Order: sequence, then structure tokens, then C-alpha cells
Amino acid sequence: MEERITSKQNTSLSHVRKLLSSRAYRNECREFVADGIKLLQEALKWKFDVKSVILSDGVIVPDLPAHIRVLRVSPELMKYVSNMQSPQGALFTCAYPQADESELSGGTLVLDEIQDPGNVGTILRTADAMNVPVVLCGGCADPFNEKTVRASMGAIFRTKLRFSSAEDVIAACRHRHIPLAVTALHADSKDIRDAELRKCAVVIGSEGHGVSPLFLENADLRLIIPMSPRCESLNAAVAASIVLWQMQRIDA
Amino acid sequence: MEERITSKQNTSLSHVRKLLSSRAYRNECREFVADGIKLLQEALKWKFDVKSVILSDGVIVPDLPAHIRVLRVSPELMKYVSNMQSPQGALFTCAYPQADESELSGGTLVLDEIQDPGNVGTILRTADAMNVPVVLCGGCADPFNEKTVRASMGAIFRTKLRFSSAEDVIAACRHRHIPLAVTALHADSKDIRDAELRKCAVVIGSEGHGVSPLFLENADLRLIIPMSPRCESLNAAVAASIVLWQMQRIDA
Repeated sequence: MEERITSKQNTSLSHVRKLLSSRAYRNECREFVADGIKLLQEALKWKFDVKSVILSDGVIVPDLPAHIRVLRVSPELMKYVSNMQSPQGALFTCAYPQADESELSGGTLVLDEIQDPGNVGTILRTADAMNVPVVLCGGCADPFNEKTVRASMGAIFRTKLRFSSAEDVIAACRHRHIPLAVTALHADSKDIRDAELRKCAVVIGSEGHGVSPLFLENADLRLIIPMSPRCESLNAAVAASIVLWQMQRIDA
Repeated sequence: MEERITSKQNTSLSHVRKLLSSRAYRNECREFVADGIKLLQEALKWKFDVKSVILSDGVIVPDLPAHIRVLRVSPELMKYVSNMQSPQGALFTCAYPQADESELSGGTLVLDEIQDPGNVGTILRTADAMNVPVVLCGGCADPFNEKTVRASMGAIFRTKLRFSSAEDVIAACRHRHIPLAVTALHADSKDIRDAELRKCAVVIGSEGHGVSPLFLENADLRLIIPMSPRCESLNAAVAASIVLWQMQRIDA
């Protein structure tokens, strides 16, 4: 099912441009966009509902299922649609996956207002590698932002996403007797090497302001990643990665 | 010493623009550019040779030493000079620091063709936090690139940079009996948790191709960060951060 498209005004292309630029429109359509043949193959491998594929002239995707709609465009038109400096020649759209509705368990990472899409994607990629579930709280960058999807290197196709409010995470921890731990640069914070992270829900806070007051007030435990006193902090994705490394369940 | 500058053709501004865009010009002048008041204060704190400061109208830098040349510009001109979407209103230039010429020691991280300035800066920031020395080999992003300096969050002002060729790292390891370890996804690679990383020089390879053949061929030890089999790899800065965490010398 390949169609040749030559006009910028084509409604399918307009739809993709709007999906790329607007989180509200993505939520309305429950559809998102990703870039690149490797990600497309990952999406297909994990049985994602791929809606349509836009390919630049000459780009071939091996084993593309016949039922998927293919829109063929010039490289110039691809650049216009993708709004990227150097698109990889294969944009595709997917339906939103079902969110993970299972109950919160110990050994979960909680993202609190991580605003950079690259950081959220990198954390999802590392969490997938470490076999640690992640909860995205309000204020985080959209996991369906094209930049998040790219930085996740396909983790978004391999793991179920969980969404929650801070209030619900706090309530679930109380209800299920899961210690709520926050990373915080306090004098009384506990060295992460001395804490049983696999039993806790561990909150990582925003790049600029750290963990939000609601989580801080309701925390059972404050954690610190020990570091040289001349440094103020670590990059949010790096801090999350070190916590994930301490929480990892590869051997399980 | 404040001067008002209103022309795009001003030679001092042209100099800064060229420093921002050309690695060769930075090397020729032995001078680089950084952005932001916080970084400027870090540079001053660590006694860097700050050559000149460009400030947007209204921006005030507390405790700026009187001998430093200040160029005052409009926000529009700042945007033109910085070539950034949203410059912070304080660009400054510094002389290159002296490189660290000390001998290689065990417990050093070696960067091999890490090409993304953000990754190099993030690794320098994490290495500084973990008190681990870093060697930059040929093919790495320039540590004096404005993006690297920014991602380093001032680590570039707090730690001495070491540069080397791969050949010299290999020779120094042999000469000083330091095991040379490479991160590699091989079946016979050793779990990083089982290796004495603080005795080794540990090589982290490029984002796309991993560790280069010369290091692979001369390695005493291949290391692997254990991860879920469904993942191919970690982000280079994340992989480096987990290795640095295992090598850290905070307690020393």
C-alpha cells in the first residue's frame, strides 16, 4: 500500500507534523511519531500498532508488513514534515500503547518533573536495561515526544509505561508498606549504598529544583549519592542511572 | 573597564563568534568561550584566566574583578554573538588551562572517540563528582566546545584536563603495570562488579562503534555492564557514569 505524496498540503503529512509539535494533539489522537528504521523495526518486533510509515525516496524497510500504509516522499518533503536537520528517512506513527495499571511495587523508580525529553528517554532506556519499573509523575516531559522516543532507543516499545500523580504514588506506598525514598542533598540523607533500594519507591527530582515539596514532606527516607564536596549535583539522567544501577534486577 | 558595543562588525565580537564556531581557531588562540553567570563565577573561583566578559543590558555580575574587560551589548547583539536561542546574558572567554601532564595512574577513565559534546561534558561532570581522573584521547569532542563546557557544569574549571593518544595510553599502562580494561559486549567480558576498577585504566568507546580496535587488541581485560538481554547498549554518558560510580574515590 504505497502512495506517492508530493504536496506539503497533504492531510496525512499535516497530521504527522501536528503529532510532532503538539502534546495535546498526540493525546487527542492517542498516536505518536518516531524517526528511523531501527526504531521502526523495534516497534514492529514488540507488536506495536504502527499506523503509517513515511519514507524518503530510496529508503527501503526490510520485512515491512503489507498492511501498513506507506507514504513515499522526496527528501525535501521529509525534511519539511519531520522538522529535523537530518531526518533518517523513515518517520512512522504508532498508536499509544496500553499503560501499565499494575500496583506499585518495591524497587520502582519515580520520575518527578524531569523536564528534559532527552533525560526522560535516557532514564527509560537505562531502566529497561536494569529491569527496573518506572513511574512518570505529572510535570515530566512527554514520553511520546519524538526526542524522548529517540533517546529511549526503543525502550518505549519494550516496556510498559506507568503514569501517576504524586498523591497516588504516596498513597500506594502507604497502603502497600513500601518505603518512599527521595534523593536530596541533606545533611541527614542516607548514602544510597547503605539503603535497600530494591524495597523502596525512589523519587528522582527535576533538573533545576530537585524533588518537589509534596514528595519531600511524605518521604520515609532521604537518600544521597555521595560525591566530591566541590560538586553541587549530577545530571538528572546520571543520578537516575546510578540509582537504577543500585536497584538493578538483572540477576533476578 | 566597561565598553559599550553596538556594531556587529566589532572585532572583539567577531573574535568571540569565531572562538565559538571553530576548534582550530580556539586552539590557535588558546582561548575558549562559556555562557552564564554561574559558570563565570566558577571560573573565577578556580582562578581561571578570564579574558573578557560580554554582558547584556541589565545583567550584573557580583564581585567581578576590576581588571577584567567588560563589553556591554544589547540583548539582540548578544543573541547574534552567541548564536544561541536563549543566551543567559553573560558570555565570557578564558585562556586554555594548563593540561595535566602527570603520569597515568590506576583508577583512570579513558575516553575513546566520544563524539557528542554533551556526553563529554556530562562525563567530565560525573568524573569530577566521583573524584576520578579522565584522559581524553583523539577523536573526542572538544572539551572547550561551548556545549561541552556547559554540560560539564563547571567541572572543566575544577579539574585538570589530560590529553593523550591511544598509543601513549597503551604504552603508559604497560610501563606502569596498570591493567588496561575496555568496555565491550563480548561473551568473555567480565562483570564490572567483579573487577578491581580502581587499579585499571578503563576505556569507554564511542557512541556508535564502541571501543576502537587498537584499544581492543591491547586490552588486558574486557568488561561488561550487565543488563537486560533485550537491550543493546546504554547511552555513552550513562555507561561511563556507572563505571565511574564503581571507580569512585569519594571516601579516599
